[in-house]
Amino acid sequence: MTKIITISREFGSGGRQIGHQLAERLGIPFYDKDLIKMAAEDIEIEEHIFEMYDEAFMEKEEVEYTPFSHTYEVPMSDQIFVAQSRVIHRLAEHGPCVIVGRCADMVLKDEQCLNLFFYASFKKRVQRLLELEQLSQDHVKEMERRVREIDRKRKDYYQYYTGNEWGKPQNYHLCLDSQKAGMDACLDAAIAYMAHLN
Amino acid sequence: MTKIITISREFGSGGRQIGHQLAERLGIPFYDKDLIKMAAEDIEIEEHIFEMYDEAFMEKEEVEYTPFSHTYEVPMSDQIFVAQSRVIHRLAEHGPCVIVGRCADMVLKDEQCLNLFFYASFKKRVQRLLELEQLSQDHVKEMERRVREIDRKRKDYYQYYTGNEWGKPQNYHLCLDSQKAGMDACLDAAIAYMAHLN
Repeated sequence: MTKIITISREFGSGGRQIGHQLAERLGIPFYDKDLIKMAAEDIEIEEHIFEMYDEAFMEKEEVEYTPFSHTYEVPMSDQIFVAQSRVIHRLAEHGPCVIVGRCADMVLKDEQCLNLFFYASFKKRVQRLLELEQLSQDHVKEMERRVREIDRKRKDYYQYYTGNEWGKPQNYHLCLDSQKAGMDACLDAAIAYMAHLN
Repeated sequence: MTKIITISREFGSGGRQIGHQLAERLGIPFYDKDLIKMAAEDIEIEEHIFEMYDEAFMEKEEVEYTPFSHTYEVPMSDQIFVAQSRVIHRLAEHGPCVIVGRCADMVLKDEQCLNLFFYASFKKRVQRLLELEQLSQDHVKEMERRVREIDRKRKDYYQYYTGNEWGKPQNYHLCLDSQKAGMDACLDAAIAYMAHLN
């Protein structure tokens, strides 16, 4: 039975791409960056501000305080999380789809979902990204830093908004190494598992 | 292509049972407690001593020191680990099989294996074990303690002998929740994934 599928993924694992293929194979919509646009329209702010906060909550020093204001100002990152969550709920009401990132697994924790987590060895992820961006081995160190930084942001974001540990198997139905057996292996495994979900 | 399949599992998740069914479905041997017997025969010690140390390494205070001996005495738990590892290597040489626990994933890290980790929510595991042992809900607290204790032992044992973190997705090809979609879902997912392994 086709479900709402939420995808969490280490940076460079190809989880987003597998999610896209999964949506295609099942003939259901795929939502990733589109969520940003929809949520931005909802709260009427500019998309580029939204993108800045997407899947990254701001450290305290980056939040603008308004100590002399008499109204409590909700930090922009929290406003954006709430707006995205509303969009995620709305999409889920429309039926099966694939949603990548943005804590969708926890936002939809009361819905019937299939929650997947994709990972791969650090080295393989770095190499995959270099190939994708057509960069030489001279850029390995720089790419390693980027992978570490984005993973850390996703981890902090997930922890901050859900209180749960990102990438802990118990939060997901299935966790899959996307590089050891290839992406088709992950697709087939996820579809085989999902066939048994009520 | 059928491989050597290693199974790690939280206590009560049913991972052992899934491993058994997987071996049956693939028509390959299944090794669990049998490893104990084979390794015990290898180093000529009694099976009941072996069982005491199986998947549990002894804390320092439990190791018998021989400070005045001129020979260094290898702790029994280490002797047993080495003997079991030898048996695991021997079995792997004979071709595809399913091996449950005993750090087989790390013992065979240079072989072509499919490494699986099975888990389920704490509550579901406790309930499953109560049902299996035909115990009433009066035994919940006692069973919860047992589940925590055995998980901790497996975690410590794995950490001690491999230096890796037990249940961390990156150590396995696939991590599967065994209770959310049932055991057949896990079987089908593992077989679908394995079909793509070289």
